[in-house]
Amino acid sequence: MRPSKSAETQTATLAEIAREAGVSAPTVSKVLNGRADVAPATRTRVEELLRAYGYRRRRAEASRSPLIDLVFHELESAWAMEVIRGVENVARDAGLSVVLSESAGRLTPGRTWADQVAARRPHGVVLVLSGLDESQRALLTSRAIPFVVMDPAGDPGPDVPSIGATNWQGGLAATRHLVELGHTRIGAISGPSRMMCARARVDGYRAALETAGLPVDPSLIVGGDFHHDAGYRLGLGLLGRDDRPTAVFAGNDLQALGLYEAARELGLRIPEDLSVVGFDDLPVARWVGPPLTTVRQPLTEMAEAAARLVLELGREQEERAATRVELATSLVVRSSTGAPRAVRRRVS
Amino acid sequence: MRPSKSAETQTATLAEIAREAGVSAPTVSKVLNGRADVAPATRTRVEELLRAYGYRRRRAEASRSPLIDLVFHELESAWAMEVIRGVENVARDAGLSVVLSESAGRLTPGRTWADQVAARRPHGVVLVLSGLDESQRALLTSRAIPFVVMDPAGDPGPDVPSIGATNWQGGLAATRHLVELGHTRIGAISGPSRMMCARARVDGYRAALETAGLPVDPSLIVGGDFHHDAGYRLGLGLLGRDDRPTAVFAGNDLQALGLYEAARELGLRIPEDLSVVGFDDLPVARWVGPPLTTVRQPLTEMAEAAARLVLELGREQEERAATRVELATSLVVRSSTGAPRAVRRRVS
Repeated sequence: MRPSKSAETQTATLAEIAREAGVSAPTVSKVLNGRADVAPATRTRVEELLRAYGYRRRRAEASRSPLIDLVFHELESAWAMEVIRGVENVARDAGLSVVLSESAGRLTPGRTWADQVAARRPHGVVLVLSGLDESQRALLTSRAIPFVVMDPAGDPGPDVPSIGATNWQGGLAATRHLVELGHTRIGAISGPSRMMCARARVDGYRAALETAGLPVDPSLIVGGDFHHDAGYRLGLGLLGRDDRPTAVFAGNDLQALGLYEAARELGLRIPEDLSVVGFDDLPVARWVGPPLTTVRQPLTEMAEAAARLVLELGREQEERAATRVELATSLVVRSSTGAPRAVRRRVS
Repeated sequence: MRPSKSAETQTATLAEIAREAGVSAPTVSKVLNGRADVAPATRTRVEELLRAYGYRRRRAEASRSPLIDLVFHELESAWAMEVIRGVENVARDAGLSVVLSESAGRLTPGRTWADQVAARRPHGVVLVLSGLDESQRALLTSRAIPFVVMDPAGDPGPDVPSIGATNWQGGLAATRHLVELGHTRIGAISGPSRMMCARARVDGYRAALETAGLPVDPSLIVGGDFHHDAGYRLGLGLLGRDDRPTAVFAGNDLQALGLYEAARELGLRIPEDLSVVGFDDLPVARWVGPPLTTVRQPLTEMAEAAARLVLELGREQEERAATRVELATSLVVRSSTGAPRAVRRRVS
């Protein structure tokens, strides 16, 4: 007997899997429904066969709970709230509730999580900066639970639908703004190098310098982790140099706020002595002193798009080609950027 | 037949309800389990009888989903994230997932929400600044779904378990700190008057003034809504007066940040011209310039306590007297408070 993957033979395949596993068809159903009353060894055997056969439950036959799962890499960030709100908006309109979980800093949620999701049968799963490994993907696919990755940390693979923002263009716009103000010595604080969005932003920064004919000084590009403390610590390093930059693209808003603190500590005024650009446009960007020039990332809209996409995927009987949607970022100029002193002097 | 509420006759009562409703006992069970396959009219009749008889499902017999419901009055605030994290911590340790919903600015969640909760049978419900009306409470009680209110907006009633913080003591400590620095003209921006926590903070402020023998000027107490914009708008009013206060207790951190903006706009320096104290100690309080002196409310710990309490209530077969726990607040002195100018001059 050879694994068969065509849609016509799916029902037979469930029976075949039962036969091959030496269990009854209802037992295979129980496994698919995440029921607890199956012996662990049986369950493992059935799961392995489901995966080997590429079994895929037909969507119409899968009974679903009125839930959407939303999984975060970590809930630390002020960022997360914007995303939660977006998914809540779409869920509410669809009469669904949102189940929130955290993969606790690991980049793929734990095995227990996947089992729980299979058992509760949500309409879909939105993963934020958090990917699925091969077996988790197979588990969701076999239960016909669609998923979408928002702003993926790594390359999500060509067959994974995902929603992002134009990070590269954002980094480009942020840095061009500084170049146009007259800065020639511009630093950058990046995010974690394993996150594609962080890489894309710094690549945009480099592209802006290169297209302006300015040299890229690798010592002015430092790697953070998107948290406030990294902005503070790396900021002290960058600003403590004799040849300190007159402007810094901070990678995100939290790092920009850390940089504010470093500047205060060193007695540097923003924007007179240092221009700062963030990325995200969190609510706090408007509130700090001086209000932060930043690249707006439409987080709530991105989350809405991800939730809508996952519901759409759930409604479709047939698969469709994976989608990658990037929503536009835009530069919001506030008061943390200005011409460097040398230029001011020349102008005045 | 008269409604009977004693524990011994509960099973009979289900049958009695079925008889009186003119349906079968399994139909009553279906209603209790939130199943959709019951005619709306039948369902309404059964619900009314369940409520009239004070029917209460025995906890042991209620099969539960591995979920905790967390309901917010609104998800706008930076505040919300601290609470979500606390509930997540407890849920994760208990192998449960968190279902998040928002009562969308209303103070009690909508009817649909209660039905959804009854259908998904979580281990318990944590309500944040959000109460339940009588019929929603009856619905949860009849399904043996326990609930706890965190930091209740109104008086939650003596039979509702709740977790709060020592808001009154916090307002007292904030204002005493300002009095000890030498301020005699101290303003206050309150939160919404329907929220008990807001009232308690301002009462603490008043008590500090009175015990220090300082007059309470009602025109220096203004009512906000705990949002940034209220702090800004009311701040402009307070600081624009000829007899402006030299210090303001801002009611919460977001209003304090709005006040920062108003002070910047009027050219007043913090703390030289104006001392500011917030309430909450959100992460952002450390990041703003100058770092904000504030009353720390242990939001994450409060949420953890609420989640633990609701799980405890679910494990107990018998009811117990409702609990009201208040966790201690503490003053965190940073750089936004100092002696008023008159006192500085005298000292120097």
